[in-house]
Amino acid sequence: MPIRTREWQLAARPHGEPTPDDFRLVELERPDPADGQIVVRMLVMSVDPYMRGRMNAGKSYAARWEIGETMKGGAVGRVIASRSPDVPEGALVLADAAWRDVAVLDAAHVRVLPELPGIPPSYHLGVLGMPGLTAWVGLFRLAEFRAGDAVFVSGAAGAVGSLVGQFARLKGASAVVGSAGTPEKVRWLTEEVGFTRAFDYHDGPVADLLTAAAPDGIDVYFDNVGGEHLEAAIGAFKEFGRAALCGAISGYNATEPVPGPRNMFLMVSKKLSLRGFIVGDHADLRGEFIEQVPPLLTSGQLVVRETVREGLDDAVPAFLDLLRGGNTGKMVVRLAQE
Amino acid sequence: MPIRTREWQLAARPHGEPTPDDFRLVELERPDPADGQIVVRMLVMSVDPYMRGRMNAGKSYAARWEIGETMKGGAVGRVIASRSPDVPEGALVLADAAWRDVAVLDAAHVRVLPELPGIPPSYHLGVLGMPGLTAWVGLFRLAEFRAGDAVFVSGAAGAVGSLVGQFARLKGASAVVGSAGTPEKVRWLTEEVGFTRAFDYHDGPVADLLTAAAPDGIDVYFDNVGGEHLEAAIGAFKEFGRAALCGAISGYNATEPVPGPRNMFLMVSKKLSLRGFIVGDHADLRGEFIEQVPPLLTSGQLVVRETVREGLDDAVPAFLDLLRGGNTGKMVVRLAQE
Repeated sequence: MPIRTREWQLAARPHGEPTPDDFRLVELERPDPADGQIVVRMLVMSVDPYMRGRMNAGKSYAARWEIGETMKGGAVGRVIASRSPDVPEGALVLADAAWRDVAVLDAAHVRVLPELPGIPPSYHLGVLGMPGLTAWVGLFRLAEFRAGDAVFVSGAAGAVGSLVGQFARLKGASAVVGSAGTPEKVRWLTEEVGFTRAFDYHDGPVADLLTAAAPDGIDVYFDNVGGEHLEAAIGAFKEFGRAALCGAISGYNATEPVPGPRNMFLMVSKKLSLRGFIVGDHADLRGEFIEQVPPLLTSGQLVVRETVREGLDDAVPAFLDLLRGGNTGKMVVRLAQE
Repeated sequence: MPIRTREWQLAARPHGEPTPDDFRLVELERPDPADGQIVVRMLVMSVDPYMRGRMNAGKSYAARWEIGETMKGGAVGRVIASRSPDVPEGALVLADAAWRDVAVLDAAHVRVLPELPGIPPSYHLGVLGMPGLTAWVGLFRLAEFRAGDAVFVSGAAGAVGSLVGQFARLKGASAVVGSAGTPEKVRWLTEEVGFTRAFDYHDGPVADLLTAAAPDGIDVYFDNVGGEHLEAAIGAFKEFGRAALCGAISGYNATEPVPGPRNMFLMVSKKLSLRGFIVGDHADLRGEFIEQVPPLLTSGQLVVRETVREGLDDAVPAFLDLLRGGNTGKMVVRLAQE
């Protein structure tokens, strides 16, 4: 008996900011699973800034979405039927397989997740998932964070940024400064998450705000934003400053080339390092990450917040809102209750 | 008996391109050497692009020249009188002590040089000196060059650039591409120095010229120029491309901030690394450098060319000409014959 599903497809490639017309929700019949396949009911799906790149025609680091095909993204689901000995019915799995309510998948393409007491499935899309590992890899490997460093994070109230700041604090940063886009986020960062200082980047030139927040300069910058933020960080770096470049959301919807930092001459005189990265190239750090982070969660040392939207119909509005900074912490879309 | 010397002093800080009026040549009497001091007759002095930074009021990585004081720079000289047991009369020494014909120096501030058969003293200011070590450090440590890499060097006909290309070729580069500022330099690079390809950056947009010269992309970029060259390299990088940022001569005389690369978004998607450096922080590589490079010289595997100017009076015109690209290979000023 074919399986009825509801799935989001890319309808058009956006020029600049995406609109709801670039997407369409369709109802499909999918064939029964073959040998080695499973049927997964999605519980929660991820919307992430990097997905903006998957909408474009050009080459990106993540496989692009094709027009007329179902879009993919990280999701956690429950196996409701299995024709694979490796992934039994009832298992909790992670897959790059939403935006849809039900998926028929090759068992080899999912990862079976542990059932952790007190840890909701959505955490596997955030603090324990790709954003968490991204924060870990960027801070410790790319930016070579060391105890005593002063750290600046842009997009600090986001899924990745809020963890970067906390990992830095827990590992002995001398100061953790964050930028965010609303007064509420700034308050959350300093009052609840434990940032030393935070500022709303709308309040003035970022360089001035950063100088005020980190008057002695910074050693490490974790960049989620690009543009003016990167220029400000280069200006604020002490000697041997190190930046991990994770994203540049300020330019994702740009239709013209975004001007680069005008102070690149400081790269030589201050002996700076800028390193772009994609988490997928650093899977070898997953072991230490998965060993060290869950205890920080269960002991309450990590503050985690999610922005949860309800239902597959809301996935596109959630994504568009994310690109405008409408989230605090990880944004997810809940597709089913258990 | 006091020692009469002729010395160049900084007369004014330039705004933009320096002019001869920013310097003045004075005659001074210097006191006889005290205990622990030596008198050095300078044989040859260095003019280097980095010296432009020493003219500025702001902080630079090299100690700035003060107005009304004698300017300093790398020089090789012969000890003509000594009150130090460590540095005997007759020794060949390297010091940050020209621009002048004779200097009274603390023996602790000079390095005694070996007398190498067939190696002129000026080579200690170039291939065996700071520019040579700069090329070595940037290529092997900062850019993490590996055999098989395709390498691009800007300012390729300069003291540093011409060595970067040759070190890369000798260590197994798949291709070595250079940019320079005249057709003669381009010819020299491909016909005599062994670059795979070279281009004159005046012949079109650097990005187009680089694409034509390295159609398969580049793995390593050694930047002496900055600006448009850096943007072109970022565009031409393959995944995991690595740049060593050594200098940015295109902006040294700029009076307005130079726009940064407009394609910084590629830093993340291509996982690129940009690392600025100053050779002085990497003195630990001097041992392997001094072990490996002289044999390459004596065996004739390294092509070395110098642009030699004659006499202390010509030091300022030589320096101004250097900033306009008037050198091929290392530019030095000969101050005395032996």
